Amino acid sequence: MIKVGIVGGTGYTGVELLRLLTLHPAVELAVITSRGEKGTKVSELFPNLRGRVNLTFVEPDEALLKGCDVVFFATPNGTAMNSAPALLEAGVKVIDLAADFRLRRIEDWERWYYGMRHACPELLAEAVYGLPEANREAIRAARLIANPGCYPTAVQLGLLPLLEAGVVDRQSLIADAKSGVSGAGRKAEVSILLCEAGDNFKAYNVPAHRHLPEIRQGLTAVAGGSVELVFVPHLTPMIRGIHATLYATLTQPDVDLQTLFERRYANEPFVDVLPPGSHPETRGVRGANLCRLAVHRPQNGKTVVVLSVIDNLVKGAAGQAVQNMNLMFGLPETTGLEQIALLP
Amino acid sequence: MIKVGIVGGTGYTGVELLRLLTLHPAVELAVITSRGEKGTKVSELFPNLRGRVNLTFVEPDEALLKGCDVVFFATPNGTAMNSAPALLEAGVKVIDLAADFRLRRIEDWERWYYGMRHACPELLAEAVYGLPEANREAIRAARLIANPGCYPTAVQLGLLPLLEAGVVDRQSLIADAKSGVSGAGRKAEVSILLCEAGDNFKAYNVPAHRHLPEIRQGLTAVAGGSVELVFVPHLTPMIRGIHATLYATLTQPDVDLQTLFERRYANEPFVDVLPPGSHPETRGVRGANLCRLAVHRPQNGKTVVVLSVIDNLVKGAAGQAVQNMNLMFGLPETTGLEQIALLP
Amino acid sequence: MIKVGIVGGTGYTGVELLRLLTLHPAVELAVITSRGEKGTKVSELFPNLRGRVNLTFVEPDEALLKGCDVVFFATPNGTAMNSAPALLEAGVKVIDLAADFRLRRIEDWERWYYGMRHACPELLAEAVYGLPEANREAIRAARLIANPGCYPTAVQLGLLPLLEAGVVDRQSLIADAKSGVSGAGRKAEVSILLCEAGDNFKAYNVPAHRHLPEIRQGLTAVAGGSVELVFVPHLTPMIRGIHATLYATLTQPDVDLQTLFERRYANEPFVDVLPPGSHPETRGVRGANLCRLAVHRPQNGKTVVVLSVIDNLVKGAAGQAVQNMNLMFGLPETTGLEQIALLP
Amino acid sequence: MIKVGIVGGTGYTGVELLRLLTLHPAVELAVITSRGEKGTKVSELFPNLRGRVNLTFVEPDEALLKGCDVVFFATPNGTAMNSAPALLEAGVKVIDLAADFRLRRIEDWERWYYGMRHACPELLAEAVYGLPEANREAIRAARLIANPGCYPTAVQLGLLPLLEAGVVDRQSLIADAKSGVSGAGRKAEVSILLCEAGDNFKAYNVPAHRHLPEIRQGLTAVAGGSVELVFVPHLTPMIRGIHATLYATLTQPDVDLQTLFERRYANEPFVDVLPPGSHPETRGVRGANLCRLAVHRPQNGKTVVVLSVIDNLVKGAAGQAVQNMNLMFGLPETTGLEQIALLP
Repeated sequence: MIKVGIVGGTGYTGVELLRLLTLHPAVELAVITSRGEKGTKVSELFPNLRGRVNLTFVEPDEALLKGCDVVFFATPNGTAMNSAPALLEAGVKVIDLAADFRLRRIEDWERWYYGMRHACPELLAEAVYGLPEANREAIRAARLIANPGCYPTAVQLGLLPLLEAGVVDRQSLIADAKSGVSGAGRKAEVSILLCEAGDNFKAYNVPAHRHLPEIRQGLTAVAGGSVELVFVPHLTPMIRGIHATLYATLTQPDVDLQTLFERRYANEPFVDVLPPGSHPETRGVRGANLCRLAVHRPQNGKTVVVLSVIDNLVKGAAGQAVQNMNLMFGLPETTGLEQIALLP
Repeated sequence: MIKVGIVGGTGYTGVELLRLLTLHPAVELAVITSRGEKGTKVSELFPNLRGRVNLTFVEPDEALLKGCDVVFFATPNGTAMNSAPALLEAGVKVIDLAADFRLRRIEDWERWYYGMRHACPELLAEAVYGLPEANREAIRAARLIANPGCYPTAVQLGLLPLLEAGVVDRQSLIADAKSGVSGAGRKAEVSILLCEAGDNFKAYNVPAHRHLPEIRQGLTAVAGGSVELVFVPHLTPMIRGIHATLYATLTQPDVDLQTLFERRYANEPFVDVLPPGSHPETRGVRGANLCRLAVHRPQNGKTVVVLSVIDNLVKGAAGQAVQNMNLMFGLPETTGLEQIALLP
Repeated sequence: MIKVGIVGGTGYTGVELLRLLTLHPAVELAVITSRGEKGTKVSELFPNLRGRVNLTFVEPDEALLKGCDVVFFATPNGTAMNSAPALLEAGVKVIDLAADFRLRRIEDWERWYYGMRHACPELLAEAVYGLPEANREAIRAARLIANPGCYPTAVQLGLLPLLEAGVVDRQSLIADAKSGVSGAGRKAEVSILLCEAGDNFKAYNVPAHRHLPEIRQGLTAVAGGSVELVFVPHLTPMIRGIHATLYATLTQPDVDLQTLFERRYANEPFVDVLPPGSHPETRGVRGANLCRLAVHRPQNGKTVVVLSVIDNLVKGAAGQAVQNMNLMFGLPETTGLEQIALLP
Repeated sequence: MIKVGIVGGTGYTGVELLRLLTLHPAVELAVITSRGEKGTKVSELFPNLRGRVNLTFVEPDEALLKGCDVVFFATPNGTAMNSAPALLEAGVKVIDLAADFRLRRIEDWERWYYGMRHACPELLAEAVYGLPEANREAIRAARLIANPGCYPTAVQLGLLPLLEAGVVDRQSLIADAKSGVSGAGRKAEVSILLCEAGDNFKAYNVPAHRHLPEIRQGLTAVAGGSVELVFVPHLTPMIRGIHATLYATLTQPDVDLQTLFERRYANEPFVDVLPPGSHPETRGVRGANLCRLAVHRPQNGKTVVVLSVIDNLVKGAAGQAVQNMNLMFGLPETTGLEQIALLP
């Protein structure tokens, strides 16, 4: 059994991680820490875990965490970087679900993340970006995983085949992304109240969103050259799900897009390419570790349209983290991740 | 492996049954029939089953069904009664998720169900009402199960302890029940469109609802005398979930209600009594085979208030059907039913 | 023109009051105060008012308010009581949309409202409870109005005809009420996030809710004797609307309930009794100053079921406040209140 | 008073038209026809109109309609074209809220609209496309108005300033549009049930949507040359509202976009340009005849992003139709259209 610790875990990513790890056949949940909720039973905070998780949140405690095989950080940005070095030194693997290790260039990180100082910039080069479909072998060997953001997962999986094949213009990509409200977290904020976000639709952070440099970095790595992307996130009145609608300009108009996508993902257990003419729905992946894609070329023009859906809390966060753990510990990649989406 | 057939299965009860049976370790899904959808792949109708269920709907075919160990009917009322006798005779167990075998008195059935003639009234006496918390031993021995309705499950589980103990007036029970829209089925009807049922709340069928005689019959069986119940169902703008708010007048004011409920359900794997002062939420059981209860006595008065929540598609339909199957086949009752509710 | 001031007004009751007063032909909006939002333009907080309301929130300022004909308090409980005496003395009429003047007995008020001390108990006797259907003449003559709570409006309008006529048992009333989330206000609280309250249903405050003494007081006043009521509020995943399902035991089984209700409300512009067999919907009154009622007697038994719907922000708050203002200033009662509900 | 007839009116566009016309001070609602609902009171179909509209649906009757000053067609596509010629000849003005007269080229119309034959192609040249912000003077003089589609209204108002000024590439426009479910109409279809469209997000009709040629035609008219557009519509789980996110490539990078938009719409009563950095919300225009715009240039790059929101049933349908009626009858353009959006 893999002995697992969780730091944080009081948000939506945390409850989803707890759900998946509880059902995982090779995992023993050993400890969960939270400064704010210490002494609270996990099942009091999250009624779905009542009778299933008997842990109580404890004060963060390095000794306890060092006794684990792997520690997940389901914390705000800027937390994991303070604890990761000591854990790694103690031989504990670390998976950060926040952004502390996602950007390779320290100046990018410090610019986009609140002008914080990074606590361990020396680890940025070692950290592996945990998108298995792009970095599987590196993940297997990694001690420290930067688990991708939700938008970056949906956007990169949708654009990877096009950029790897070099069939679109790298300088004019557009990602029009729509997220359910759980992407904003479990925070006491007026803007995500049911009465504010319900029955409403809006874009936000159009001038700049922190997931932009993460997406650019990931796409540049596969594109063989710098990538320019316009990224427009929107809030849609549902709980879970991201739908990214991706636009790229074809430079090789003869490419067979459907075949390109099907081949690229033929052996991927968690990416599903739909038949031509399809439109994936977010509910089709609700609760499942799955990215579902469809590729279109409207009016047979020069613009490719890729539709990419994930559950932001699963393939966009906790599920992908478990997938990375499976790889790091030599388990079959799908272990504990075979839930079927809940529909309706 | 239990060889399973499904008749119908194109509605919400059907897709949930397919989800649960696909994940069930002792089941082999052998055949699914539908007149309307014959030739359609199950995964085309239900995108959550893509890659998981490879069956195609076929024309109803008695020979195929007779090759199964058990056949579930996820059909409209009035269908199972036409096929059940032949299947039972062939040694196939039958679980009807509709209402054909729920009422023991033929005249009740024919009055409440559209004035249909019952096709096999002789089976009404044999059919076992599949509420395991009331009828476990009979279910184990049954060939034919009448799987309870969704409202009746939530209402009966909430009132059973009070009536069995004889501590409330049997003549003045009230069940004020609220259902998510999936309870109305997957039908092309204007009244359940998102634009009609969304952001809206209403009662319906206050003069009479078909679940009333089913509830009365079940409660009368345990109460030791006839029961009168006012049952008011409401439609609430969510997808899954029933919340029944139950009112009864205490005849024994000294009873310890909390202890009564906790003892009654102490060994029940799928009924969870909350601590005093609690309020169960429907989302806490979304996707799980669980009834969660809380019992209150406001202002220490003569009225008991029981709050009872289930997922109408799971403990109120497909999950309970699988629970019944487990009992009928001698499996541990929780086999394949250990999903954790999806929250948020 | 009536010169109007608003204290508070940064919540949902406030924005609805602003909408109604902006469209009111006899009103001049003179001043709006808010400590927290001083300097903010009203239209920045509430995008629906952009281009329609040019006011900016100012620091609370007694001199400015004393220049008004009427001041509405759309503030938390415990605010209006501090300012009302000075305003009344200056000849300004006061309408409090919070609870400061709703309970006539100071000990009740101090018990149910946080153990606060009341700042002006001497005004409790003078304050008129602003339910026009019960107190119209007193409202016309009043200086100080206690605008009713949302639940109390829906419940009292539903039960008044029965209690006035003395046809039901006063000791066994039940009010099972369901509210949209806007009833909880515009506050940064986790429990009313879209991801917590959405796709979910639950009861709350079953042991005790502050609207209970208000309802009991109002019903006792018309019933000719003390009233006992079990009141169970629920949160339903929609924005606006209350649906109260009311249960009473008939003591006079021969009464013609439909006629009783129709006669009681025959001349009421804002109460609409539906034909027999009807089920009112909350969306049918969304945005309108209207209470819609239906009365049932299931199975011709001893229990009356009344269904009562309002928009909690209109007839349950801001609309009723404007209705009271119209009465206080001798205007036709419907002035500025002729909006048609927004459907769908 | 303008004597108004409505043909159809049993859908969401119809009920919104009835709401607006009932509140319009210069309108007398004379007749409403529906084959399917003849004999039904309007207020039975639409509870928000109870007590406000006393009309009953009657069988379509040319004589009755000829007695009107103007007839609105709130009918499926292909209906108005059969009745318009006779009404026009009788001196009745016609406003078609469907698509019969929107496309100027008969071959386009017959290709995009089901291969129907057009019943009166000779009227296509005379019909005026009823987008007042583009065609105000022609509308004033028109007998026959083709009221724009909902998506085309949001998209055209967002792109007009850019194309009129010639500052973007006409060949690479993208319109990523999200609609509430009321845009799909009030039809008994499974795909728009609450349980299918709720808590879900998807694109649809990516290969081709009928609003594409309408948008292209309108934009070409102002652009001084042919326009190419990729149009991707999406369904978002809310009732009302369209949010169009528009992308264009700047050809004149020095243009002051904010000023361009503000000047273009400075005198438009129903178009509101937000300050720089803003994100309009659909709820800010819910129930109001208003298009709200914001213009962005992310990372100061070559791509302009315009955010455009409307209520699809008001500025996208019934409100715009009333605006056109006001122009045709010489009334102030805002008459009867001064509702404030309902928020929350």
